[in-house]
Amino acid sequence: MKIGLLGAGTIGFGVYEIAEKIPDLEITKVLDRRDIPQLRGKLTQDAAEILDDPAIDAVVELLGGVEPAHSWAVRALEAGKAVVTANKLMLSENLTEMAALSRKTGGKLRFSAAVGGGIPFLFNLLRARRVDEILEVGGILNGTTNYMLDMMQRENLGFEQALKLAQQAGYAEQDPTADVSGGDAKCKIHLSAALAWNGMPDKHDILCEGITSITKQDMEALNKKGYACKLLARAARQDGGISCYVEPTAVPARSVTGNIALVENMAFWRGANAGLQRFTGAGAGRYATAYAVVNDLVDLMRHNDAFPFLAEETPLPIDNAAAAHPYLVRGMEVPGAVEIGDGLLLTGEMPVLEMHAMVASARARGEKVFFAGVCEEQEL
Amino acid sequence: MKIGLLGAGTIGFGVYEIAEKIPDLEITKVLDRRDIPQLRGKLTQDAAEILDDPAIDAVVELLGGVEPAHSWAVRALEAGKAVVTANKLMLSENLTEMAALSRKTGGKLRFSAAVGGGIPFLFNLLRARRVDEILEVGGILNGTTNYMLDMMQRENLGFEQALKLAQQAGYAEQDPTADVSGGDAKCKIHLSAALAWNGMPDKHDILCEGITSITKQDMEALNKKGYACKLLARAARQDGGISCYVEPTAVPARSVTGNIALVENMAFWRGANAGLQRFTGAGAGRYATAYAVVNDLVDLMRHNDAFPFLAEETPLPIDNAAAAHPYLVRGMEVPGAVEIGDGLLLTGEMPVLEMHAMVASARARGEKVFFAGVCEEQEL
Repeated sequence: MKIGLLGAGTIGFGVYEIAEKIPDLEITKVLDRRDIPQLRGKLTQDAAEILDDPAIDAVVELLGGVEPAHSWAVRALEAGKAVVTANKLMLSENLTEMAALSRKTGGKLRFSAAVGGGIPFLFNLLRARRVDEILEVGGILNGTTNYMLDMMQRENLGFEQALKLAQQAGYAEQDPTADVSGGDAKCKIHLSAALAWNGMPDKHDILCEGITSITKQDMEALNKKGYACKLLARAARQDGGISCYVEPTAVPARSVTGNIALVENMAFWRGANAGLQRFTGAGAGRYATAYAVVNDLVDLMRHNDAFPFLAEETPLPIDNAAAAHPYLVRGMEVPGAVEIGDGLLLTGEMPVLEMHAMVASARARGEKVFFAGVCEEQEL
Repeated sequence: MKIGLLGAGTIGFGVYEIAEKIPDLEITKVLDRRDIPQLRGKLTQDAAEILDDPAIDAVVELLGGVEPAHSWAVRALEAGKAVVTANKLMLSENLTEMAALSRKTGGKLRFSAAVGGGIPFLFNLLRARRVDEILEVGGILNGTTNYMLDMMQRENLGFEQALKLAQQAGYAEQDPTADVSGGDAKCKIHLSAALAWNGMPDKHDILCEGITSITKQDMEALNKKGYACKLLARAARQDGGISCYVEPTAVPARSVTGNIALVENMAFWRGANAGLQRFTGAGAGRYATAYAVVNDLVDLMRHNDAFPFLAEETPLPIDNAAAAHPYLVRGMEVPGAVEIGDGLLLTGEMPVLEMHAMVASARARGEKVFFAGVCEEQEL
């Protein structure tokens, strides 16, 4: 199989190195602005040389960002080429179009690496869907925020200190907004939900709270009560649709989820037959992500199925009033909530929609609020 | 695809129920001694009616035990039928023959459910192997012993009490030997290692210590030192072969592995590219195991690959002198070991082979020894 590579950065070059060792996978052209000695003879600065080359069977898109990644992926699919990408933002922003193209081209679009990096999560979710009813899907889907929360907890740091550490370690961007706002996790739960239930959730209806409000004191308070704090993305089947949200979540310090460390990711799905299945692994990094990309290429080459992305277009309305759990809250009044010390309130079971709305109102009034869902391990 | 089912017990009937809902999977005949109302018209008491029926494409073997499961699986494969089984004991006892048959029949033998129950572990291990070098493989592969150890730790019970609980809950057999001796986990690491490295390890060289020696006092001592005790099976690539063993292992109480609860399983592999990948889920149970069996059937029906079991016959010698780590020991002298209180010694890094040999000698002298490997989370 002849492959054109769009972008030979961290992951792209890793894909090149791994693919080189696989018989019958041949990267023939690479788009990159730089002169990369190992890639001489393959390099081009003109995407058309890849997209319009009839000899190229598959395009690997690792440019990141929405454009030109999106236009080029569309062009490649329309030209009958397969496309493998790790670009969750591009996919999530253009889900309806990409799903239609995926249907039209018979599943030639694959993106295992878009959720969970090296974890074969989406692949297994789709494989599971063939023989099981998916009830819930989600996880710790962003390594940067997990690293920061883990550092805050272990080293007793504040948010800014943890961010600086993450930046120094190369885990956080200079502008960390996409990670710390929960935006990256939101893209990933969007894609996961679409695949789990073969439908089209509206991204704007996903409620999303990042980790920017948690203070050193909040973390200490959670610690004292036996909790770890994790940024969880979750979607669950509800009557007539799904719930879908991202929020900081207090989980028992002695639990699997509470011990996902550093930049590791954990992705889970719960099936009616299989029960709770969790996958942990490197959510990012050159070789782990590249590994997932190359595995998609091998599946394409061997005509394996199990990426039947959105075979039919089904609406999948999001209703976050249907999901409810207790919350820990600081900095805002909540009727009926109980003070548990250290400035924290514990609420009763509350709809996710109601809590996020209350917090938005309080913040509009200038209140500085932190909140975290409470999740006992057995629920997850 | 027309399917004959050998055995409609707990898992077999689950397979029937799940497969019934999958288009193009049709269970046409079922071998079972009992009269099962839902299966009337399909039932037979004569295996030949399934094995000799040219209309049957695939045989699902869920009888358990070595014979007649083994003979019938061989007969089905030789007749050109596909075989799906969850029978780790049968496979492990006949690995060379089954591997040769698998080669001969082009991968028509599948057994995802044989390790980890509902966890798609072997399937993903084989998929990983296509593009990664597997460095290590293993996990908590026996739910019965995990339940017992978890109960001993949480409820402060002794071995016998924990066993009684497990038997009452239906997790342990009346004769629990296969589980508590580590024999079941040994079969599973045997199969996992064969698949990870595409070779043939000699089962007799796998060192195996079960959980029968751990006392309430040992568990309390481990607890006090911040450890949980898990029965871990591990195999790792070594120069010229592999290490491969099963033994109780002290892991940090605050770690992913230390928090695998009740009958849950955790299976892991570590790859040169992908790093550490862990899968957790139900290691047993009707629907979880049946789910894995039916997923194998769907892969067979769709001619998906990724079960290239033992494409070549390669010797895979086991050398447990090549793996080393510290041990916690009670009831035996170990030169150079340090007393750490509560009757426990902490040894330096010791070859696994040496420790298991020392314990065997001490027991031959009548000493009552408990020992556990020490594993920090980052090593796993």
